Amino acid sequence: MTLHLPIAASLGDPAGVGPELLAAAWAKRRETGLSPFFVVGSRAVIEAAGKARGIAVPVSVIGAPHEALAVFDDALPLLDLGDAAYTPGNPTEPGAQLALRALEIATGLVRGGAAGALMTAPVAKVRLAKIGFAYPGQTEFVAQACGVMAKNAVMMLAGPSLRVVPVTVHVPLSEVPGMLTCELIRNRAAIAAHALVRDFGIAHPRLAVTGLNPHAGEDGRMGHEDADTIAPAVEALRAAGIDARGPLPADTMFHAEARLTYDVAICMYHDQALIPMKALDFDEGVNVTLGLPMVRTSPDHGTAFDIAGKGVARANATIAALRMAAEIASRRALAA
Amino acid sequence: MTLHLPIAASLGDPAGVGPELLAAAWAKRRETGLSPFFVVGSRAVIEAAGKARGIAVPVSVIGAPHEALAVFDDALPLLDLGDAAYTPGNPTEPGAQLALRALEIATGLVRGGAAGALMTAPVAKVRLAKIGFAYPGQTEFVAQACGVMAKNAVMMLAGPSLRVVPVTVHVPLSEVPGMLTCELIRNRAAIAAHALVRDFGIAHPRLAVTGLNPHAGEDGRMGHEDADTIAPAVEALRAAGIDARGPLPADTMFHAEARLTYDVAICMYHDQALIPMKALDFDEGVNVTLGLPMVRTSPDHGTAFDIAGKGVARANATIAALRMAAEIASRRALAA
Repeated sequence: MTLHLPIAASLGDPAGVGPELLAAAWAKRRETGLSPFFVVGSRAVIEAAGKARGIAVPVSVIGAPHEALAVFDDALPLLDLGDAAYTPGNPTEPGAQLALRALEIATGLVRGGAAGALMTAPVAKVRLAKIGFAYPGQTEFVAQACGVMAKNAVMMLAGPSLRVVPVTVHVPLSEVPGMLTCELIRNRAAIAAHALVRDFGIAHPRLAVTGLNPHAGEDGRMGHEDADTIAPAVEALRAAGIDARGPLPADTMFHAEARLTYDVAICMYHDQALIPMKALDFDEGVNVTLGLPMVRTSPDHGTAFDIAGKGVARANATIAALRMAAEIASRRALAA
Repeated sequence: MTLHLPIAASLGDPAGVGPELLAAAWAKRRETGLSPFFVVGSRAVIEAAGKARGIAVPVSVIGAPHEALAVFDDALPLLDLGDAAYTPGNPTEPGAQLALRALEIATGLVRGGAAGALMTAPVAKVRLAKIGFAYPGQTEFVAQACGVMAKNAVMMLAGPSLRVVPVTVHVPLSEVPGMLTCELIRNRAAIAAHALVRDFGIAHPRLAVTGLNPHAGEDGRMGHEDADTIAPAVEALRAAGIDARGPLPADTMFHAEARLTYDVAICMYHDQALIPMKALDFDEGVNVTLGLPMVRTSPDHGTAFDIAGKGVARANATIAALRMAAEIASRRALAA
């Protein structure tokens, strides 16, 4: 599959690992078979980040996304939002402003059809909030830019071993049981099922739905949500023709043999999904937003301010996110 | 290290996988270097279970534990509690009675000093409850037999990749936040630390303590228990000279590199501990009870009625549990 539009990669917080990982990914474009992408950010930051990592990255400033296709083989194409200081490990307000502007412009280019997919490098949510960013994270921002309600934009984490969808995400654990409804689980799972068909080419996706409680409640002896809330959601999914099973005891769902029996695990909360994902695929997890009219991925890690600029952050997840963005965009283009 | 007392293995529910796995473990005694053990149970059940699995296991009925040492090379030593029907997959009340009697007698023999350690094969808690067994599980029964309060008997799961201690275990997830106290966490962790020294030969054990909430609460933005309850427990442990760290974001604690930084993960609830354990070491997990005057292990799986008698259940965890029981008993004997 070939992609005829480049991928737009937003810079991320310039004090984090985003810039150096974009430079490192470009440097490995041939061996990893990356489709053309361009960075929306700052030439000065990308060049300094590459230098700090010990890789010479020729940057070619472009005026429009399509120019990236011709340039990509020989240089890292970049839409320049202006000079900025490269201060790895020391986030600044101008840096947060740059990260936000890069996200806005990259999103707009993809939404407008000038770029084929969006890959967002990591930002610091706390820092964005301080400069007025009113979204819990980049995912919600992108959803709104697409005119999609946040509840219909579903986060999936995908690695070589496993795909997981957390039904609830960044909430205190004590609030999880009260937030789970049959409708919420059904909605998230149905969006995931449709996305596996459309974006991942899995004709008949198999969903494994976790229980909330130990041993999925063991017939009500350890909690009632499994029988009262999750089981009806699974039944509703099956009634809609979706191959869903559950609620299943979460602790026995993630060994190699069990993973062969499903294409995605629908999990009830953050750690239930993220613990197995990161235990198995730590450096390679991709965060992909399902249910949007545009394609958006990101590496499944944060800004990692503590190691930024030290040359030790691994580019695997960024490369995997760029590859997955290209694959999904190609699949959609072929189907259109 | 050599053990001069045999290990007592209780039969488990005769309709489960316990009997066949004990027979299979004995058959592999040489290649796996097992120390002598004997089964407390029923000759008829063990022989039938071995036959169903296609292995010829000569059973030698013994009158007292010490006889097992001379017999073990050539036959599986067995303390016979009487004939019983072998009905794999179909648990019965006489079967539950036999499982309970085997547990009582095996525990008594170890507690009295006639056997070196206890390895319990799996029972069905629901079935034991029906015949009047008043304990949540075998662990609490063994603790009481030792005169130890249940709260001071700590369950650790140990596999080749990981050791975990769940602070709360078989309770609904919604009750976990309310059950966690600084004292509970501190007590469980301190017992684990002492056991790693005494029973596992780790001179300076390193404890990694999970947070309860996503990202360990992220400075209170996603829950307060991490800062209010877990952090003070970690401080108290450190003040007592124990090398504890935390609360740590649970999702980034279980990849290979992170696991090198600690000897045991102290986890806040069942799935937080059991998901990574079973994802990484599915067939090899051993449940070991810490904090008791006697040694007790068991394979980290249940009766598996659905596959009992079919020859497909794997003996790895039973063999690992027998090995770990022997190792801990030897270490204690040397230190005594």
